[in-house]
Amino acid sequence: MPKFKTVRGMRDFLPKDAEKMRYVEVAARNIARLYGYGEVITPIVEHYNLLTAKSGEEIRKRMYAFRDMGDRRVALRPEFTASIARLVTAKMRQEPKPMKLFCAGSLYRYDEPQYGRFREFWQANYELIGSSKPEADAEILTLTYDLMERLGFRNYWFKIGHVGILRGILTQETVAEEQQNTIVQLLDKKKWNEALTATHKLGASQSCVAVLKKLLETRGKDVSKVLKEAKHVVEGYEGAVAAVENLQEILELTRNSGIKFETLIEAGFARGLEYYTGMIFECYVPNIEVALAGGGRYDKLIELFGGEPTPALGVAQGIDRLVLAMKKHGVTPKVPEKTKVMIIPVDEELRTKAIELSINLRKAKIPAEVEVMGRAVSKALSNADRREVTHAVIVGPEELREGKVVLKDMKNREQRTVEIANLSKEILEDTS
Amino acid sequence: MPKFKTVRGMRDFLPKDAEKMRYVEVAARNIARLYGYGEVITPIVEHYNLLTAKSGEEIRKRMYAFRDMGDRRVALRPEFTASIARLVTAKMRQEPKPMKLFCAGSLYRYDEPQYGRFREFWQANYELIGSSKPEADAEILTLTYDLMERLGFRNYWFKIGHVGILRGILTQETVAEEQQNTIVQLLDKKKWNEALTATHKLGASQSCVAVLKKLLETRGKDVSKVLKEAKHVVEGYEGAVAAVENLQEILELTRNSGIKFETLIEAGFARGLEYYTGMIFECYVPNIEVALAGGGRYDKLIELFGGEPTPALGVAQGIDRLVLAMKKHGVTPKVPEKTKVMIIPVDEELRTKAIELSINLRKAKIPAEVEVMGRAVSKALSNADRREVTHAVIVGPEELREGKVVLKDMKNREQRTVEIANLSKEILEDTS
Repeated sequence: MPKFKTVRGMRDFLPKDAEKMRYVEVAARNIARLYGYGEVITPIVEHYNLLTAKSGEEIRKRMYAFRDMGDRRVALRPEFTASIARLVTAKMRQEPKPMKLFCAGSLYRYDEPQYGRFREFWQANYELIGSSKPEADAEILTLTYDLMERLGFRNYWFKIGHVGILRGILTQETVAEEQQNTIVQLLDKKKWNEALTATHKLGASQSCVAVLKKLLETRGKDVSKVLKEAKHVVEGYEGAVAAVENLQEILELTRNSGIKFETLIEAGFARGLEYYTGMIFECYVPNIEVALAGGGRYDKLIELFGGEPTPALGVAQGIDRLVLAMKKHGVTPKVPEKTKVMIIPVDEELRTKAIELSINLRKAKIPAEVEVMGRAVSKALSNADRREVTHAVIVGPEELREGKVVLKDMKNREQRTVEIANLSKEILEDTS
Repeated sequence: MPKFKTVRGMRDFLPKDAEKMRYVEVAARNIARLYGYGEVITPIVEHYNLLTAKSGEEIRKRMYAFRDMGDRRVALRPEFTASIARLVTAKMRQEPKPMKLFCAGSLYRYDEPQYGRFREFWQANYELIGSSKPEADAEILTLTYDLMERLGFRNYWFKIGHVGILRGILTQETVAEEQQNTIVQLLDKKKWNEALTATHKLGASQSCVAVLKKLLETRGKDVSKVLKEAKHVVEGYEGAVAAVENLQEILELTRNSGIKFETLIEAGFARGLEYYTGMIFECYVPNIEVALAGGGRYDKLIELFGGEPTPALGVAQGIDRLVLAMKKHGVTPKVPEKTKVMIIPVDEELRTKAIELSINLRKAKIPAEVEVMGRAVSKALSNADRREVTHAVIVGPEELREGKVVLKDMKNREQRTVEIANLSKEILEDTS
């Protein structure tokens, strides 16, 4: 029995899975570079007040919060956006707009663990700060699409909505923002009826409740049809109409520039974070209930954190969820077959030579291990097989006297004697 | 005034520094690949009991410990080795030996912040599990040397000792292990006199205290000379003599295989973590007091965590400290000059075309941004300069009618009209 376990909701990734995690992280970082997003690193431990300023009650209740040894009230970040807003307002005020920032790392929420949902999880996060234009919204959608394509997904869809539709209606009905948040939270949890009841209780007219009810049914994959319907449903609510038109423009920009992805428009779509003000979206694959990515526009957030009024939007992509989805859907990373060399000295005297050879191979960028267990050649060779080594180099006294070693191809089991001076060349030729 | 700040001891890394952090992390991961270390990812939040099992009082007192919402006593990891020992004993018992594991990430200690020392810091960590041979010790030294060289450091040294020297003496003087730990801690904090007094109080003979005193003075850069002296000083203490001989063999293996680094041998060197049993070392550069890397052998650790008795050793390299040292010593990453394209539509109508062009450039692996602020060309161009863009692509209606755009080299300010079909080729030729 092992003496120690991981804490509930936390995970270890063994080499095969860790490699996939890094593969997705690197793919996301590459997207950031290609789209001009500079990477930043912010702390995992932040002030509690920062993280709760605008995250919504759901997240607030599930934070890893505690007091540090200096009696500061701190918490582990449950998302990146608050930290980025802090960074931008405190340290990057003078940077030219638009500001494009990328970050990647682990986040913490005390959720009930379930398929695809853990208490420690990883995200790649992109923020586009300073533009209110639909081009910016289109870019955030496009780069998420781009990541899905580059990872090799073929069957996925974007669920897209616009917080401005709902908020436009409620604002016109003079429901206060705080109370709007309650309704958004209920919708996010798919408690449709409770949301409608709450809307009525908060003073909205009977006809407004009817509009909301219809809005929740306005959804589908035919983008122009659904948007047309939505516009009709919200007629008379100016803000809501403008929101539908904004969404329409964003999606036209995306589609007309040649990007094609399956889209599910939901006119009554809401996301749990309270800070969204415009277009919102999530990305899904079949048979996995949790979203692989999600984001949207939050034009008031930077102001809230003490900055100038600054439009902004962003997206977070779930790194561990993407790995899970890749496994579930048989999407495999395109990793070239790897050369792996094991150098085995036939006796203790030759250890130094073995180490020296390994150093030279690594200089030629060839991964090379040295037998460090002091085992006999036969034992070391069978271990090399278990380690998926492609080539063994056996260092023996006779060959060495002539400046040679034995090179054994572990796949076809053939071996030959090669000049040490040609060793890396011979190995590279074998694998090219 | 910004509304929110980072928590004391925690840091933000803006793009230029974050890039250096990732550069060092990637270099360390590359070393892991070349030496055959598989990467694992373990949680930042672990059970308190795991982290305190063998970490030493100094670290125990400075952990970020708290109770989670399920009333579990947890803490943020202050080092990697306990997590790796847990992983190995619980989930990797059947793996062939030697087991070589790499990990990289952030760690947390409530230390008093000072130059190079923060409460959140990053390490690359390598564990070599299953070998008691000096080849294994030599490998851990070699790969740390290799990282220093690849990063471009030329002026650095290794401080090397062997815990077996001190423990060999104290064990023969029948000082219990727990009490030995007290002495190790005092030596680690450079409280030499207190350590000697404590040794005497714990029942060691007067002659033993004299030997220890001499041992603390046995240090220097002439490896063979210092080791010869050390052997003489500890004469009669069998375990200590064996430790000196072990250290001698390790360093001979390293040197004779062609690795040359400056070495400072300290016969009385101790490290704060209690789990070390053999060779210990740290790596330094001038003008930075904190170690850039440190490690050693801990043959009893795996057993302590519930595994079979298994020899093991490892090294942790400070990623943020290496970045600091690179800045301080003018060691610059070899990053090739980067092409960066900004695409500017001259009017709103042409936004779609601009987005489309950006998508095609990124397919050709060229970083490309689109003007998303809706600015006029002249404004967008001056912004492009501030963003260190190398090429601007201006999309205008006349050129577009002929399937062309204007390509402007931002360095020499020359511009030419180019076929859209040749755009990526023209940009790549400019920068090659």
